Amino acid sequence: MSTSALRNLISLKLKPLSISYPQARIFRNPLASPARKMSTFVQAPHKLLVIPGPIEVTDEVLYANAHPSMSHMSPDFAPVFGDCIRMIRQGRASGSSDAQPFLIAGSGTLGWDQVSANLVEPGENALVLHSGYFADSFADCLQIYGANVDQVKAEIGGAVKEADIERALKAKKYKVVTVTHVDTSTAVLSNVKAVAEVVKRVSPDTLVVVDAVCSVASEEIQMDAWGIDAVLTASQKGLGTPPGLSIVVASQKAIQVFENRSTPVTTYYGSWKKWLPIMKAYENNSAAYFATPPVNLIYAFHASLTQIMQGSVSLEQRFKLHQDASRRIKKAAEKIGFKGVPISEDVQANGMTALYFPDGFVANDIIPRLLKKDVVVAGGLHASIKDKYFRIGHMGVSVVDPSRGDIDKVISAMQETLAEARASKQ
Amino acid sequence: MSTSALRNLISLKLKPLSISYPQARIFRNPLASPARKMSTFVQAPHKLLVIPGPIEVTDEVLYANAHPSMSHMSPDFAPVFGDCIRMIRQGRASGSSDAQPFLIAGSGTLGWDQVSANLVEPGENALVLHSGYFADSFADCLQIYGANVDQVKAEIGGAVKEADIERALKAKKYKVVTVTHVDTSTAVLSNVKAVAEVVKRVSPDTLVVVDAVCSVASEEIQMDAWGIDAVLTASQKGLGTPPGLSIVVASQKAIQVFENRSTPVTTYYGSWKKWLPIMKAYENNSAAYFATPPVNLIYAFHASLTQIMQGSVSLEQRFKLHQDASRRIKKAAEKIGFKGVPISEDVQANGMTALYFPDGFVANDIIPRLLKKDVVVAGGLHASIKDKYFRIGHMGVSVVDPSRGDIDKVISAMQETLAEARASKQ
Repeated sequence: MSTSALRNLISLKLKPLSISYPQARIFRNPLASPARKMSTFVQAPHKLLVIPGPIEVTDEVLYANAHPSMSHMSPDFAPVFGDCIRMIRQGRASGSSDAQPFLIAGSGTLGWDQVSANLVEPGENALVLHSGYFADSFADCLQIYGANVDQVKAEIGGAVKEADIERALKAKKYKVVTVTHVDTSTAVLSNVKAVAEVVKRVSPDTLVVVDAVCSVASEEIQMDAWGIDAVLTASQKGLGTPPGLSIVVASQKAIQVFENRSTPVTTYYGSWKKWLPIMKAYENNSAAYFATPPVNLIYAFHASLTQIMQGSVSLEQRFKLHQDASRRIKKAAEKIGFKGVPISEDVQANGMTALYFPDGFVANDIIPRLLKKDVVVAGGLHASIKDKYFRIGHMGVSVVDPSRGDIDKVISAMQETLAEARASKQ
Repeated sequence: MSTSALRNLISLKLKPLSISYPQARIFRNPLASPARKMSTFVQAPHKLLVIPGPIEVTDEVLYANAHPSMSHMSPDFAPVFGDCIRMIRQGRASGSSDAQPFLIAGSGTLGWDQVSANLVEPGENALVLHSGYFADSFADCLQIYGANVDQVKAEIGGAVKEADIERALKAKKYKVVTVTHVDTSTAVLSNVKAVAEVVKRVSPDTLVVVDAVCSVASEEIQMDAWGIDAVLTASQKGLGTPPGLSIVVASQKAIQVFENRSTPVTTYYGSWKKWLPIMKAYENNSAAYFATPPVNLIYAFHASLTQIMQGSVSLEQRFKLHQDASRRIKKAAEKIGFKGVPISEDVQANGMTALYFPDGFVANDIIPRLLKKDVVVAGGLHASIKDKYFRIGHMGVSVVDPSRGDIDKVISAMQETLAEARASKQ
């Protein structure tokens, strides 16, 4: 394929940006470089991956992950990193005009360390809102870095009620409140906007930290409008990139709190003191060194963000498509006898589904049969109900590109699987 | 290409393993799977990357990095991760029979956090042997986690003398001694074997920690025979994989020291308490979860380790090839007027070269001209001499596969560049 034909192909899939950027108006697309022979790359045939992350990713993203080795200090690479910083700020990871992104090699978990070691000082209080497994882990992390942690726990399948948050905030002064936007162990969606409202009203100095690992790009987040101080996520879920990149976006208020610490930061690798000048340099399209960034993954992340931000599907449509796919899967599942883990519709995530097995069935009746139909789902994770349910992810390209037929495949595989499992018991 | 033809092609490039494995004798090669159409993938044309990491990587490694999304909990993925753990232990990252590898998403820098937060308790003493920039950073990291750090500094271009190490060890009891095997800022090679001998003789309880980020697979390391307690490295240098994987190998003695801590580990993401059961599970070819591993990068790492461990070039030949390439480059450079940063031949690294510009020349005379010849080198990094020198990496496939002509290209580009620079001054 000629360069111009390739450019035409790409331009058909992209629409002009409607948002403006402080430093650069146009994102460089490394896939559009004449040296990149995208047309030759198609990912290998494989089972459909519909766990709540990692998710299916596009050929373009995988091809970018196979970018030839590049120097992390190269003037060709720096603006690609810079674009990622700009896109993640402007996109729905943050919906902010001035928040500070940190893109660091690591798992999503590293975001907890960043919050615990940069925003909280040893001996300060943290309030963790518990809607599943990941709150316990975040609390554990905060404690390791010296915070005094209280948890407000919802019932399994529920989100913490605002009245309970208000009561806790009135009883004690907290440096941070953390909320898991979508808990990957329960598929429970917390109302982050409402949580932030309560905090701003009752304890306006308290920072609102959102664990958005399983929600960015499938659920709306508005840092500025809602008053969120830190959003932490990872590359391998709604952001449609292989795992290995920790992404944290901090409000300017959070950055000020970090800068006004009275004690030193308690991590080295996750220290914003080290990373802040690096992120600022790359955002200015020039390289700086603290630790070698995951260069190939940054190219892959750039390819995915470009598809998300400039693709023919707008961000609003993207959220709508996630809601639609979620409803279809949940409805189809309930119709044949599965019951959702979330206790009510208003706490159901749109990017994943957690389903109790019908009475008399266990994981081994369902998950291996789905696997035989080339559909890979995830088992239970929440300790109290681990063996009683399973989880389906429906994020990113599986949802946004209906021509793939992924959602149809998941639904029919579920239907056939349960019919077979029922038949085998008779 | 048919599956059998592909298998034949791969078998031509591999020779049988001569080492034995506790759990599995044969490494699975994901590239040999019928579903992988390796024959169609050739990496895009690009400038020759000869910085001291990231380095050039093979098409097989990049194709593995473009592996379709896989669950980190998949029974297909777990043995691939398990193979990486086994290969890194048996290979020249450790040369150990029972040491414990940790493969964690992150930069090489994360290895410093792992050592500082798992092996050293707050208030304990650490001795850092300084042969360049990276010792200062390791010292900084140790201090952040509460260690009392002393440094023994070599002159620029030198390694710390054994007599100085002995004197320091006799003056104070240290929990750890750290040595940078090859300091990427100076290209100085430290004699790790000799350092370990001094420590074992003078202060046998002290742990010997080797920062081997820029030495694994280009310099020999024998953990067991030399008495090394921790080797920390990263994926993007001698190990020939894109950046984004922190690799630490800890001796059983180090693991015991970690397990007998009297205070809690001071990191969450880098905590061996969290990762040890995960590494043990994957080594048993079953998945376990603490934080999502960088799945694609693990496939890429597997592809590279397979080429290193099972390729037609033995590990001994690999070291010899690095020595030969290093000598050729250094000799050619000195012949035309460059002077090496290392002060003597016995402290010259084999995987990289640091060269002072000839009198009257600066970085701008040399580096952009090399770039115009499609040769990407690195600028200076050591603060005291930053503008006076540059650095060339010669590791991995650029050295091991002479048919690429990379080393010839580097040498002739250097020669032409300096001739042009000289001509331009006349």
